[in-house]
Amino acid sequence: MHTALCDELGIEFPIFAFTHCRDVVVAVSKAGGFGVLGAVGFTPEQLEIELKWIDENIGDHSYGVDIVIPNKYEGMDANMSPEELTKMLQSMVPQQHLDFAKKLLADHGVPVEDADSNALQLLGWTEATATPQVEIALTHPKCTLIANALGTPPADMIKHIHDAGRKVAALCGSPAQALKHAEADVDIIIAQGGEGGGHCGEVGSIVLWPQVVKAVAPRPVLAAGGIGSGQQIAAALALGCQGAWSGSQWLMVEEAENTPVQQAAYIKASSRDTVRSRSFTGKPCRMLKNDWTEAWQTEGNPEPLGMPLQYMVSGMAVAATSKYPNETVDVAFNPVGQVVGQFAKVEKTSAVIERWVQEYLESTGRLEELNATV
Amino acid sequence: MHTALCDELGIEFPIFAFTHCRDVVVAVSKAGGFGVLGAVGFTPEQLEIELKWIDENIGDHSYGVDIVIPNKYEGMDANMSPEELTKMLQSMVPQQHLDFAKKLLADHGVPVEDADSNALQLLGWTEATATPQVEIALTHPKCTLIANALGTPPADMIKHIHDAGRKVAALCGSPAQALKHAEADVDIIIAQGGEGGGHCGEVGSIVLWPQVVKAVAPRPVLAAGGIGSGQQIAAALALGCQGAWSGSQWLMVEEAENTPVQQAAYIKASSRDTVRSRSFTGKPCRMLKNDWTEAWQTEGNPEPLGMPLQYMVSGMAVAATSKYPNETVDVAFNPVGQVVGQFAKVEKTSAVIERWVQEYLESTGRLEELNATV
Repeated sequence: MHTALCDELGIEFPIFAFTHCRDVVVAVSKAGGFGVLGAVGFTPEQLEIELKWIDENIGDHSYGVDIVIPNKYEGMDANMSPEELTKMLQSMVPQQHLDFAKKLLADHGVPVEDADSNALQLLGWTEATATPQVEIALTHPKCTLIANALGTPPADMIKHIHDAGRKVAALCGSPAQALKHAEADVDIIIAQGGEGGGHCGEVGSIVLWPQVVKAVAPRPVLAAGGIGSGQQIAAALALGCQGAWSGSQWLMVEEAENTPVQQAAYIKASSRDTVRSRSFTGKPCRMLKNDWTEAWQTEGNPEPLGMPLQYMVSGMAVAATSKYPNETVDVAFNPVGQVVGQFAKVEKTSAVIERWVQEYLESTGRLEELNATV
Repeated sequence: MHTALCDELGIEFPIFAFTHCRDVVVAVSKAGGFGVLGAVGFTPEQLEIELKWIDENIGDHSYGVDIVIPNKYEGMDANMSPEELTKMLQSMVPQQHLDFAKKLLADHGVPVEDADSNALQLLGWTEATATPQVEIALTHPKCTLIANALGTPPADMIKHIHDAGRKVAALCGSPAQALKHAEADVDIIIAQGGEGGGHCGEVGSIVLWPQVVKAVAPRPVLAAGGIGSGQQIAAALALGCQGAWSGSQWLMVEEAENTPVQQAAYIKASSRDTVRSRSFTGKPCRMLKNDWTEAWQTEGNPEPLGMPLQYMVSGMAVAATSKYPNETVDVAFNPVGQVVGQFAKVEKTSAVIERWVQEYLESTGRLEELNATV
């Protein structure tokens, strides 16, 4: 599965692993893949600590950082400080939504304390908050890729990253978005089908991937949404992609910080137990269905706000439920893709990479045999 | 792409083409694939005429017939005649739904006449109406496969078909349904991802196909939902399927009866222009989005009824809009999958099969090269 993109990035396998755990980033890159740290939950100071640790542990391998900048928010002034922006956004959240969320949480035995309400912070969901994260990342030479999980990064940010000698990747859910990325000179286009965990569009991977490949050729495309085995990577490469971008699988490795309770929930879930819901981030995002996601789509209840306002509400839920790591609370945020239905156990990261490579070789070997016997 | 299943059925390529046009059935089978006639719209007498024509034109090739028997309808008595059943079901349709549909159609310049209302017939959507279709099919020796588009066929029907020396196939949208099919001794399992046109589940093909392959191994699985190129067939075989089941593509061939207006609409549509809607058949079914599908999911309007009741309402729309074959009426039924976004032109059926085979060889050839250069 060693494609041209592997040579460009100096990696063995075009397996890109999105994760919030630095240990997983290191383990993936050391096993021949490419670990990408999701930075959205980190302050610039925390991010610096994480990247320093990665640098010290990853050896000669490289890695990436994933940020989240949606295209535009209405009424947002680019010159506002993150603090001003947070204050402004907080003032835009209807009290009805906060009350509804608090009651929903309390009804599930998860009382909201003052500290949780103060978690109504902006995190890295805007240009204003993501820019410092990019600056930090660029001071780490082994970080060779900046990915944006939503929309085309601003032109000056792309130029800035290129000037620093790093590559830019961006996710898309349609060939039209992919074209915008390509026109903005994004180096690697990640085509994420509706199967994917987290933010995703409606078009299925098997249809989306080849459309994006065709739209931006010869720019390299990574297949995302439904990647959880070597066979699925073989399918992605058969459809013209140069590699695979995966997220859900890395919640299920020994090196991940996910709790045994959460991992047990993923093992139990079928592919039908996920839902595309706006109830956490304000944009359609795939996650495990639970009482929180159901409540926000029940007629008569408040409708989810847009991004980033909804997170000003759901941030409470994330903070409050995080205090019960050893219990199943049916109002927690469990982003995961439909591949969750494949998960049967927690594995070592290196064992996953080895398994995927082996499965890929078996799958493509079977195709070779078929062609040979004609 | 010649798999073991091809030998079992005596075909060259495992390309299964679902179509309502007998000309397409013949053209596909003669080109090396396997044409399957959708029987749901035919009375037993019409079906006999179609199959006789196919027999006379298909040469030594074989073909299949596709019927629709959902699992169960509440309150349905197996001993009712089709006429009694239709009368009973008609009496269960709320007047409010009929009035809403008539107004919606009139507002779009498609007045409902008495003859259209009389189109509120049951067609082949039940065991009572599908059974005579099976009987007809079994009198045609070149018809070697009976497929059921919804659910597991009744046990006695499967036995009856097997006793006649024919094979049974059935569609599914989850590994659990696939297992039920396998336990009932269905010979070929068709795993249809949420991308598919017509009735489909929520799980994307890239995730669903390998789950179904694993669940029913070594029983052969056909990949459906998102098949519109040889690359997509390569992906299906990489994921362990033994062939591909396609429908949308055959609306876009010269031999099809679809009107130029409808084909132009398919060419114009992107993959995002389809929707899974209950507004025509009562079960989630993927089709082009239009004013009809939007109206039935607008808050405050009547909710679609279940199957088969909703078709007692939407049958009017199908009958009334069919009188305007040369106009775009935004309340017509255009079932199609997300592959619609790939369609650029109308082709000859044989040219499609040749193209798919060529694309398949290019795609798998690329994978072979990658393996060879490692």
